[in-house]
Amino acid sequence: MRILTSQSATFEQELDDLLAFETVNDPKLLTTVDDIIAQVRQGGDDVVLKLTQQFDNHPGKTFDELIIAQDTLKHAFDNLSSEVKSALELSAKRIQTFHQQQVQHSWTYQDELGNTLGQQVTSLDKVGIYVPGGLASYPSSVLMNAIPAKVAGVGEIIMVVPAPNGKLNPLVLAAAYLAGVDKVFTIGGAQAVAALAYGTDSIAKVDKITGPGNKYVAAAKRAVFGQVGIDMIAGPSEVLVYAEGEDNDRADWLAMDLLSQAEHDTVAQAIFVTTSESLLKEVAQQIDKALTVLPKADIAKQAIANRGALILVKNRTEAITVINRIAPEHLELSLDEPQALLADIRHAGAIFMGRFTPEAIGDYCAGANHVLPTSGTARFSSPLGVYDFQKKSSLIHCTQDGSQLLAKTADILARQENLDAHASSARYRLKKG
Amino acid sequence: MRILTSQSATFEQELDDLLAFETVNDPKLLTTVDDIIAQVRQGGDDVVLKLTQQFDNHPGKTFDELIIAQDTLKHAFDNLSSEVKSALELSAKRIQTFHQQQVQHSWTYQDELGNTLGQQVTSLDKVGIYVPGGLASYPSSVLMNAIPAKVAGVGEIIMVVPAPNGKLNPLVLAAAYLAGVDKVFTIGGAQAVAALAYGTDSIAKVDKITGPGNKYVAAAKRAVFGQVGIDMIAGPSEVLVYAEGEDNDRADWLAMDLLSQAEHDTVAQAIFVTTSESLLKEVAQQIDKALTVLPKADIAKQAIANRGALILVKNRTEAITVINRIAPEHLELSLDEPQALLADIRHAGAIFMGRFTPEAIGDYCAGANHVLPTSGTARFSSPLGVYDFQKKSSLIHCTQDGSQLLAKTADILARQENLDAHASSARYRLKKG
Repeated sequence: MRILTSQSATFEQELDDLLAFETVNDPKLLTTVDDIIAQVRQGGDDVVLKLTQQFDNHPGKTFDELIIAQDTLKHAFDNLSSEVKSALELSAKRIQTFHQQQVQHSWTYQDELGNTLGQQVTSLDKVGIYVPGGLASYPSSVLMNAIPAKVAGVGEIIMVVPAPNGKLNPLVLAAAYLAGVDKVFTIGGAQAVAALAYGTDSIAKVDKITGPGNKYVAAAKRAVFGQVGIDMIAGPSEVLVYAEGEDNDRADWLAMDLLSQAEHDTVAQAIFVTTSESLLKEVAQQIDKALTVLPKADIAKQAIANRGALILVKNRTEAITVINRIAPEHLELSLDEPQALLADIRHAGAIFMGRFTPEAIGDYCAGANHVLPTSGTARFSSPLGVYDFQKKSSLIHCTQDGSQLLAKTADILARQENLDAHASSARYRLKKG
Repeated sequence: MRILTSQSATFEQELDDLLAFETVNDPKLLTTVDDIIAQVRQGGDDVVLKLTQQFDNHPGKTFDELIIAQDTLKHAFDNLSSEVKSALELSAKRIQTFHQQQVQHSWTYQDELGNTLGQQVTSLDKVGIYVPGGLASYPSSVLMNAIPAKVAGVGEIIMVVPAPNGKLNPLVLAAAYLAGVDKVFTIGGAQAVAALAYGTDSIAKVDKITGPGNKYVAAAKRAVFGQVGIDMIAGPSEVLVYAEGEDNDRADWLAMDLLSQAEHDTVAQAIFVTTSESLLKEVAQQIDKALTVLPKADIAKQAIANRGALILVKNRTEAITVINRIAPEHLELSLDEPQALLADIRHAGAIFMGRFTPEAIGDYCAGANHVLPTSGTARFSSPLGVYDFQKKSSLIHCTQDGSQLLAKTADILARQENLDAHASSARYRLKKG
């Protein structure tokens, strides 16, 4: 496994190389996606059906066969084992509790002139949730996307999930039932994104599309951005685990935490940062050891080889610099007193604190969202949250008296900008004389 | 001026046609922009200088001549007339007061198991503000972009503003000084967006780019989205003014409010909605009258002809339906009791309430932001605000006891998703036996 040390003269360059990951803006991909969007806008349901048969090898002969009835969702939920049902329910309840803290409320205040200003918060009317099919079809992602929308008060939640060869993960349907998803269509790819963005006879045009997908989905989301809102363009998942010397006896835990990221896919990134050379070596050995037994060892090995690293730093200050530079999606502070670092962490999607908070707990059931900013975008973006499903309208209400100073000010500034109708419109509100 | 009535059989279609506005995704434009971005990433300052000479006809011979010194900003501010200086200062102070209400704070709570969950709010490190040059170079926009960033605690605010032929609006520089902008470069277009997104020797790579621009700027922002955050892809500005019968004596005010939007550019949209046929006619006459004297009558006339409309509705309920359908950037409720409508307004960028709150007051000095969602995007997005310059990290801190139930739950769900390293990592935290 790749080892970097902060004392090396080439450390900065090596770190740059490690983090470099750019999805190539393949012009052919963009043309294909633009073409699919245009086709769906033109042909609606018929085109969506045709493309779903073609790309997903779906056996459905009519569009109606791409609709999953609420009964089917309920059936999937009812058929869960009691163990899985309880786990899913606990998870959903905790996600709801966490996200209720994020609800934004309207506010107003009165200025010294007697005018009222404020912000009205409303929920989105309709949202579309994209759930990947196949390999990465995760029921937990259904909960993580749908529950914040539900907490925000979204009127209608429409889920799309491709069903290759007509096959669906029943747990995904059960999760949709539990989360209160209103409609489910077994469609995917750019055609599903286009249908949600522009609407068809059967699929309502939504206001926002959230959820991860493959490169076609990502390109389609970028293309329809503006027509609808989108959450983010997600990159490969990453974790940065930080531990210090005294953690030596738990190198196996740390190794498994790193591998729980690496098993996602071959470009997932697992980075271990430590001040302890002996711990670094121990973790490296434990990773090798675990890879001999892990079912997804093939994927994890490639991820580790492609993008994994063990980074030795001199001290905690250097560690924090590296953390903020990477702005990791998941940050694990495997320390007895992780609070001590918190004020200095500027950028991270989610921070897992202490030795008893592996990322896996956050992925499923801590309550915080697992849809997080990847590829350093934690520098400017946030976990998926209730705020993604609410929006604000500014409120301005002037009284006649309160408007006078403001109208005079607007008149002066509007004239400076050569906007005479603006100025005149403000002057109309001035009392005569 | 175009008149629509809700009673017409073709009303829905006419409304659709009125609102239709789509920036064509011109492939040639996209190729040009992609090429400029690639050139800037490759050639840095030199390329930015060359393109600025070429596109803006800037006389500067070295990159340093594209940098505006803080002294120059201060000088511009000091040289303002006292009237303009006071107006700008009042405006800045009110924008600051309003936006301070938007500051989000970190929170944590303890669950019933003894674990701590929460959300840490931090500001962005560096942001870039794009200020258009030429026609639409507005000092008010400098305040509206920079002050929320400042209130959020952004570390460094970098402003770019093209200077065609080397000419700059001194008011824009004065506003930059007043707002506390850290650095100003006289560059624009896709090259400025690329420089901010990827950095050059002289221009620091930022975390987010905000502010409006022409189609090259919009395409460049879309292209770099993901590498950096962006605020929105802005469309033409619009206003929807609603009034009822008793407003007859102030048709001239209403007409001027509509024209204050129409004077912006030839595709700006001014829509008047009313329940009163006589008021509708009166407003139409007042628009014609004002157009005979307005300095920007040529622009306003084209805007009115292209995209303006007077809409007659049967009652207030219909009016609200039309408003929510349009989701206007600016909504003026020119009524004595505008509060009565507020709960039913689902989508609007900013709501100007009462007869003494023309949009012009909001554009300059009410305190709310004038960077607002256009083209119906108020369905899913919000005014520019402090929240655009802050981001969140989730916090999860389990105790050993508190982790037990969660680790068991994560183990169950991870196994359902065939993620064995996740499951194993959770199980490591379980107490033995």
